[in-house]
Amino acid sequence: MSLIVVGTMAFDAIETPFGKSDRIIGGAATYIALSASNFVKPIKQISVVGGDFPQEELDHLSSLGVELEGVQIKKDEKSFFWAGRYHMDMNERDTLDTQLNVLANFTPVVPDSYQDAEFVMLGNLVPAIQMSVLNQMKKKPKLVVMDTMNFWMETAMADLEKVLKHLDVLLVNDSEARQLSGQYSLVKAAKTIMGMGPKYLVVKKGEHGALLFHEDKVFVAPALPLEEVFDPTGAGDTFAGGFVGHLAKTKDISFENMKTAIIVGSAMASFCVEKFGTARMKEIDKADIQSRIQQFVDLVNFDISII
Amino acid sequence: MSLIVVGTMAFDAIETPFGKSDRIIGGAATYIALSASNFVKPIKQISVVGGDFPQEELDHLSSLGVELEGVQIKKDEKSFFWAGRYHMDMNERDTLDTQLNVLANFTPVVPDSYQDAEFVMLGNLVPAIQMSVLNQMKKKPKLVVMDTMNFWMETAMADLEKVLKHLDVLLVNDSEARQLSGQYSLVKAAKTIMGMGPKYLVVKKGEHGALLFHEDKVFVAPALPLEEVFDPTGAGDTFAGGFVGHLAKTKDISFENMKTAIIVGSAMASFCVEKFGTARMKEIDKADIQSRIQQFVDLVNFDISII
Repeated sequence: MSLIVVGTMAFDAIETPFGKSDRIIGGAATYIALSASNFVKPIKQISVVGGDFPQEELDHLSSLGVELEGVQIKKDEKSFFWAGRYHMDMNERDTLDTQLNVLANFTPVVPDSYQDAEFVMLGNLVPAIQMSVLNQMKKKPKLVVMDTMNFWMETAMADLEKVLKHLDVLLVNDSEARQLSGQYSLVKAAKTIMGMGPKYLVVKKGEHGALLFHEDKVFVAPALPLEEVFDPTGAGDTFAGGFVGHLAKTKDISFENMKTAIIVGSAMASFCVEKFGTARMKEIDKADIQSRIQQFVDLVNFDISII
Repeated sequence: MSLIVVGTMAFDAIETPFGKSDRIIGGAATYIALSASNFVKPIKQISVVGGDFPQEELDHLSSLGVELEGVQIKKDEKSFFWAGRYHMDMNERDTLDTQLNVLANFTPVVPDSYQDAEFVMLGNLVPAIQMSVLNQMKKKPKLVVMDTMNFWMETAMADLEKVLKHLDVLLVNDSEARQLSGQYSLVKAAKTIMGMGPKYLVVKKGEHGALLFHEDKVFVAPALPLEEVFDPTGAGDTFAGGFVGHLAKTKDISFENMKTAIIVGSAMASFCVEKFGTARMKEIDKADIQSRIQQFVDLVNFDISII
């Protein structure tokens, strides 16, 4: 079962309390593909890069089963660039620099060879671009998952509301869920947001884990307590990649299996934050992932037979 | 197996975004006893109240199996009083008024009839008073659990460090764990704090649940996602009561059973916040508790056989 991934492939420069990176590879679609490729192949990538994007990064993605026909390479332009600084609590960050570059005029094209994909992951991007990809799909996908952020709620709310109506699953963090719904209680926020289109809502809470809402049901997943969160960049995208990767692999989009997908996503995100940028994601193998998922089982497992 | 509970029995006046209470019954030991009495009898209460404390509240506690021989009644004085206001996120509160009254000169006395208790729950109180209770115990209890707060870290750190050495389990919230240890990472904070005495550390994170640390092990419990947290006053004490109540009932102080105790405490706390003050705690019965605990099982249960 193949998976379309839409999003940025970019350069980041990151400062955390633990150190500072040079210009390193980043972008939502990069993290999503690196994470999802552990579960499903092929991944059909849709993005845009400049001539400065390293060929070896593209080759590495290809070697993982990521098809790049939908990735536009604008040789005379520069890739999207973001620089940011995290604070001690790692949930807050300041944007130091944003250079749209190739993103300024990005018009995504869904290649014919992508039309058979039944799973679509719309990474955080201009809502109109996310909508354009869905509009190009000749057959309604089995599952559409989307990530977004507060910036689009403030600058492109009408477009965002339009694309929300076409989603199965929306992923946002807790403050974004509150902003989008105008509700402080996450339970109420989830009801409001599911009224806007998505059948499922995943609320990411960083070090506090994640919540999955569907109809009147709710599931809570922990984050792995870590000695150090070295760099949270890409953790949300890596979570999304594990989540949708597991669903595309198993082809089961029930609430029960989405709970498992949340755990898989959480496990993948817990690797991502251990090193700067994509470094840790490029090291791990299937055995690492299996053992990390087992840690999550141990983390939440308890016996109520005694009560 | 009997349980000694030490702490305040008091009056509170509470403001939340949802309303304002009159002067209502509160105090750490009140909430702990109301919660723990669902699991273990007798509870041997140690506290102090003024002549203004309602006889019917004392009678109600007695009817639940709470022994009051250790509760000093100072007829010509007033009970401890606290007034506070919660903000929208309910994790922050301002103290509007504190009147120590009977607490100003409180010297706890452990009655002879309490000496057989094997479980001791030291509710949040002046560390020297907590220590005085332990010093009066002729036989080392099977388990000593203690709650404390940032105020004592700022005003009585030497006394707090002394009593920490005599604990089995310390309960604090996340900001207090960071303050006590000087560590931002809760995993590192837990190691530092366990080095100060307690063999187990429970970190309460309000709406984000709770963590249990012991040696190199960790357990994560969720909080129940609620439409509304009406009044968080007493939630931490109610958690403590459920936690120690389950341990005293089962007489099993293993890490495995402490995990279950954390879930029991979380379930009890989820009731407490549904109404002002102790109102909800006085309504619930065993069937309510069983069904709430089952909700926690459903909340975190997932299937990894498919992975």
